[in-house]
Amino acid sequence: MHHPKALFFDIFGTVVDWRASIAREAESLLAPRGHALDWLAFADAWRDEYQPGMEAIRSGRAPFARLDVVHRRNLERILPRFGLAGLDEATRAELNLAWHRLDGWADSAPGLLRLRQKFRLAPVSNGNISLMADLARRNSFIWDAILGAEVAGDYKPKPRVYLSACEAFGFAPGDCAMVAAHAGDLKAAKACGLLTVFIPRPNEHGPGKGEATPDAPVDIVAKDLMALADALGV
Amino acid sequence: MHHPKALFFDIFGTVVDWRASIAREAESLLAPRGHALDWLAFADAWRDEYQPGMEAIRSGRAPFARLDVVHRRNLERILPRFGLAGLDEATRAELNLAWHRLDGWADSAPGLLRLRQKFRLAPVSNGNISLMADLARRNSFIWDAILGAEVAGDYKPKPRVYLSACEAFGFAPGDCAMVAAHAGDLKAAKACGLLTVFIPRPNEHGPGKGEATPDAPVDIVAKDLMALADALGV
Repeated sequence: MHHPKALFFDIFGTVVDWRASIAREAESLLAPRGHALDWLAFADAWRDEYQPGMEAIRSGRAPFARLDVVHRRNLERILPRFGLAGLDEATRAELNLAWHRLDGWADSAPGLLRLRQKFRLAPVSNGNISLMADLARRNSFIWDAILGAEVAGDYKPKPRVYLSACEAFGFAPGDCAMVAAHAGDLKAAKACGLLTVFIPRPNEHGPGKGEATPDAPVDIVAKDLMALADALGV
Repeated sequence: MHHPKALFFDIFGTVVDWRASIAREAESLLAPRGHALDWLAFADAWRDEYQPGMEAIRSGRAPFARLDVVHRRNLERILPRFGLAGLDEATRAELNLAWHRLDGWADSAPGLLRLRQKFRLAPVSNGNISLMADLARRNSFIWDAILGAEVAGDYKPKPRVYLSACEAFGFAPGDCAMVAAHAGDLKAAKACGLLTVFIPRPNEHGPGKGEATPDAPVDIVAKDLMALADALGV
């Protein structure tokens, strides 16, 4: 693979462990209020609403709304299922911010630090700007810019999101690589002309429940972000 | 003044010294090619096209184009005046990137480093994302996000630019402060409900040719970004 000038990162699942983090945040907010539930199942249920929640926007049936708003709509949908229909507004709002408090996988911060020596780095995530900024502060990620859905005004895997990221850095798509733990994301990026890097996160959805290998052709497979830095000679 | 949660920075003139930097970059590119001219006058002439160059976009007569494109159009306009009408395309393109190589004022990097301990920081500049990213790398500025004209799709002082920055961080305008060396910028930000901080850069356009005091009411005047950190108790 010819070396890219910029690396774009999927965030949820690829750079941060949303599942354990959401379970922990939900428990720490709700357990002291007397709620007992399967916290990992709660995280999974919330995340299961993620793709359907964006689909109305991607299809053009609904105007763009940032992911904080979509997460909140999705939360409303699952609360009754977990006996939380009576949750007050302030707690709902606070719970929705759990997505701003996700922890990176162990290799994420040190891997990004190395990769930044040689490449422009940006999240190209469906997460909104303030969510990405909060994750960056929490995990000491240093980005060159926050790109992705909010800047593009649409959601991955729509081509506009990948292409607007390339344009923002002033690079041709072939000089940019999308890094993700999801083959679907990489397939869409490749169709736009970007290089593709697959990082397996085999436990993303629970032990053994993640994409261990990409089910689509990609340019590089690296076992984590440190291995990617090795592969790119940083 | 009640303390803001986010500080938004004007960049050209406020955080970086465009005049000495453009003069230096133009000289280092063109002098070896046999051109001799008044480099500071060249920088001033280029900058003088700045506001008129954006006005067609602000007024809606022309579609949005990022500042790199506007800078290039403005460059074409002034080249003949400096005997540079024969400059080849590659040199013009390289010269246009001089705006990506501006140096911060001496207080900028250390001031921003202190301010970041307590506040979300973002440029809210008319400069485009890749230009801001290059200045950040060059000067070791660490931003929480790059906001401003390219994200808003319009140029300051249009209200959309200030308001979209507040929205991107999820803060009310009254929880955000615009920091600038230009009263006009601050007047427009105040009209949108933002707090305002004036930083005098009395030599921005040459010795004694800059705004030494604001000709509009502002919430804070601080002599530089270190003094602003003092004033905000960081």
